[in-house]
Amino acid sequence: MRSHFEMNATLQFSGEITTEAQAALKKLIEDSNRVHFWKGVPKGVTDPAEIGQITGIPQFGKNSVDLSFSSGPYTRVHDALFRFRKQVAPVMGRHRLGLRGIEVNGYRITVSGDFPEGFHSPRLPFIRESSLEDGTLTLVLDVSESDLENKIPDRLVRLVEEKVQAATYGGKGEHWDLVFESGKKPRYSDADPTAEMVKRGWIKHSSARGQWIHGPQSVQLFRAFEKIVLDEIIGPMGFSEMIFPKLVPWDVWKRSGHAKGVYPEIYYVCTPKTRDPSFWEDIGDYFKVTGEVWVEEIKKRIDGPIGGLCYAQCPPFWPFLQGETLANDCLPARIFDRSGTSHRYESGGIHGIERVDEFHRIEVLWLGTAEQTVQIADDLHEAYRHVFEDILELEWRCARVTPWFMAQEGMIDTGEPGQECGCGARIGTMDYEAFLPYSSNWLEFQNVSINGDKYPKGFSVKIQSGADCWSGCSGIGLERWTAAFLAQKGLDIENWPSGVAEIVGELNELFKFL
Amino acid sequence: MRSHFEMNATLQFSGEITTEAQAALKKLIEDSNRVHFWKGVPKGVTDPAEIGQITGIPQFGKNSVDLSFSSGPYTRVHDALFRFRKQVAPVMGRHRLGLRGIEVNGYRITVSGDFPEGFHSPRLPFIRESSLEDGTLTLVLDVSESDLENKIPDRLVRLVEEKVQAATYGGKGEHWDLVFESGKKPRYSDADPTAEMVKRGWIKHSSARGQWIHGPQSVQLFRAFEKIVLDEIIGPMGFSEMIFPKLVPWDVWKRSGHAKGVYPEIYYVCTPKTRDPSFWEDIGDYFKVTGEVWVEEIKKRIDGPIGGLCYAQCPPFWPFLQGETLANDCLPARIFDRSGTSHRYESGGIHGIERVDEFHRIEVLWLGTAEQTVQIADDLHEAYRHVFEDILELEWRCARVTPWFMAQEGMIDTGEPGQECGCGARIGTMDYEAFLPYSSNWLEFQNVSINGDKYPKGFSVKIQSGADCWSGCSGIGLERWTAAFLAQKGLDIENWPSGVAEIVGELNELFKFL
Repeated sequence: MRSHFEMNATLQFSGEITTEAQAALKKLIEDSNRVHFWKGVPKGVTDPAEIGQITGIPQFGKNSVDLSFSSGPYTRVHDALFRFRKQVAPVMGRHRLGLRGIEVNGYRITVSGDFPEGFHSPRLPFIRESSLEDGTLTLVLDVSESDLENKIPDRLVRLVEEKVQAATYGGKGEHWDLVFESGKKPRYSDADPTAEMVKRGWIKHSSARGQWIHGPQSVQLFRAFEKIVLDEIIGPMGFSEMIFPKLVPWDVWKRSGHAKGVYPEIYYVCTPKTRDPSFWEDIGDYFKVTGEVWVEEIKKRIDGPIGGLCYAQCPPFWPFLQGETLANDCLPARIFDRSGTSHRYESGGIHGIERVDEFHRIEVLWLGTAEQTVQIADDLHEAYRHVFEDILELEWRCARVTPWFMAQEGMIDTGEPGQECGCGARIGTMDYEAFLPYSSNWLEFQNVSINGDKYPKGFSVKIQSGADCWSGCSGIGLERWTAAFLAQKGLDIENWPSGVAEIVGELNELFKFL
Repeated sequence: MRSHFEMNATLQFSGEITTEAQAALKKLIEDSNRVHFWKGVPKGVTDPAEIGQITGIPQFGKNSVDLSFSSGPYTRVHDALFRFRKQVAPVMGRHRLGLRGIEVNGYRITVSGDFPEGFHSPRLPFIRESSLEDGTLTLVLDVSESDLENKIPDRLVRLVEEKVQAATYGGKGEHWDLVFESGKKPRYSDADPTAEMVKRGWIKHSSARGQWIHGPQSVQLFRAFEKIVLDEIIGPMGFSEMIFPKLVPWDVWKRSGHAKGVYPEIYYVCTPKTRDPSFWEDIGDYFKVTGEVWVEEIKKRIDGPIGGLCYAQCPPFWPFLQGETLANDCLPARIFDRSGTSHRYESGGIHGIERVDEFHRIEVLWLGTAEQTVQIADDLHEAYRHVFEDILELEWRCARVTPWFMAQEGMIDTGEPGQECGCGARIGTMDYEAFLPYSSNWLEFQNVSINGDKYPKGFSVKIQSGADCWSGCSGIGLERWTAAFLAQKGLDIENWPSGVAEIVGELNELFKFL
């Protein structure tokens, strides 16, 4: 893809631009075009059309001058403008003229290349017009000086390139490589476990979508799985429990990268405009009089959204380390969190417990050098394998897939550089899937991800030694484990492997309904 | 308070009202005024001004008749209208006329009595005008026939009476009766525990208000408290673990009564208008280009609020029993939930861990007959007393206070009838408070509530025997326990009572920062 930039800008000065000052400015333009704008440009580039230039004849007003800039990919027009701005001060100062302001009157980007079918131009407030013709995308922008300082045009070009990639490769689906497949295991059911659990009163659908209330029997199984995880994985591997927040403000998702694309699936959180009870009195009165909640009016009295409910579980951990440098000897650090619910806005209707909007997950997280991070992922994989093979006796498999965060953030390629230790190739996710006899589908019931330096970089976490800080995470979804286990083993405890049945003990049939 | 009602209504018929039909209608009006409207009126009432009457002369149009109604508190004008509507069908049918519609042209309520200073009239969409003069409140309503079927006028009068009560008694604060006060206990600190925990790296403030990330040391203490609760209270008393949802839809708060007044303090939850990624693409693009989240645009693309985050922990349990009749022999039922966070929108600024927006609570809940419910509350009180006296060695007290749900719902009086067993007097809340040496304040760190039949009634839960179903709940706030304990005992583990120190063991200093 080749990009080209054009821009008109007016520079306002503090007084009349005399003929001498005009001459000095013209001289500065020549010097900039010949020397200043060439600084930092790669040696092989010799065509002035590739780099920033002030083109045409400067148009002088009484106190101002209109300049036209154009550039290829090097010293882009806004960078050229800022370099010129820096030079202008001393040069015009000699003529007792100060720069008072810069107005950007027009900004046009053209990107040429192979635009695949399915590509569409970004729709954003800065983009006044856009058109795609004969393999050239033209974007006419409304941008201010400060937008240029914020590198809006550069980021727009990168966004266009990303969209081209997404349209080119996006339809090809997730990359999936089988790594391990268990043998056949005893199956004791071909029924839908959710329907069976409902029938036996283990769970009941709640009022909100994708949300279940778990009775004592279901919780006995959850806690048995939790005990197995603690005894076989978290304990022996030395993970320490922490408590991560469950309401996630934008600031966390900006740093974790989720702000790039998590929007379709989150439950948004808004706050009251005030805690003043008199501000809310009529809302309560409306309910007392009508029996209904006055949602349309509440909408006007809340701020935000300030963020959303826990989606991926580990991002809100990272502010604990934000801006810190970690001592070498406290690494690798191994932690976990099981302090609350995660929420995803799934597609409508009532699904089984294998696909819920509100779920319970033990999140395992570790960080250290690249080597340490990869080693822990391998150890964890061995521990999981032991649990699924020897204790749960599941029919399962695992596969290497496109890193989950790429999907969550709408990314196609991390652009991670190859790491010297060879760990770079290990960045990505391993999905664990279990066979569901009732539907003959495979259910992803947990994963292990090596996230490279993504989070430490996003939250500015460093290691004392100067080595890159890496991290990994693994989400153990209790609903998913339950769905997988019960789909294969059924709800009759006498058919369960002893390692689970013994922990569960007798099922607690607390409520009896008439 | 004395209330008076006036209403004008037009009845539309299917054809021309002949002279004979007019006569029949006049006769029906007389009969209604003399007989029908008096049905169900208490014997002592003899003044026709107290009850519904059709007043003045009926104004006949071609196909319609305008009627004026007035009433005191008995057979209110809308009830009179509906009784009349029922009689009209057979009477006019004889003249081949069918009732086609009723239009309410004017509705006025006057309430006379002692309006205290601070009273203000409700502001609601049905109320076109309101004025308060010389002890008489006049409300002019815009209501439809279906509003009248929904008893809007009756509920408005009740609301006015509630507001009078609130303005009369509301300023007097919570009722508070000391029940128990522990002796002095060893104090090892007069420092603010939050500041100390931050200093030692046990907790770190997160990005959202009133939200902390808990390091391993803090979680060790939380889990020690949890173990004490399980070993000393929940286990011996036979409570079973369940999992209650943590996103609370309006339907739950409508039934629990929280919809009456919880609005100033909840975190509201909104959902995406669609999961279609293309609908959200530009929101992600905006972040990629600006580095900011496009909150103003997101606001337009979400629905709801559909409810809020867990506030009181027990209401979302109740749909599990909704509409059921419980067998006598499964009662009393004792359950608890510790599956996630609670959230309250507290006043701004960073407070200590004793006053947080996001917190962790073990919610204990029980239900049964009135006697069973009261007995469990008493047993629970004894178990808590043992824990605070013998294990935590706290300086604490407890006091009977105005039921919390009255405050949460903006109620002043439950209006619970006296119960035959004498349990009625026990409805209400016991607050547990601990002394904070650093501020010389008492901190409410948990409570026990007997809620009477409030929840079973709201969620239509019955008992086989026909006895009233009652319930109670008790929230064990881990942040509050921690604040109370550390404020008195300090952060040096050698000063802690052995029953806590032994469970905590060695503090886990996981991270070392440079």
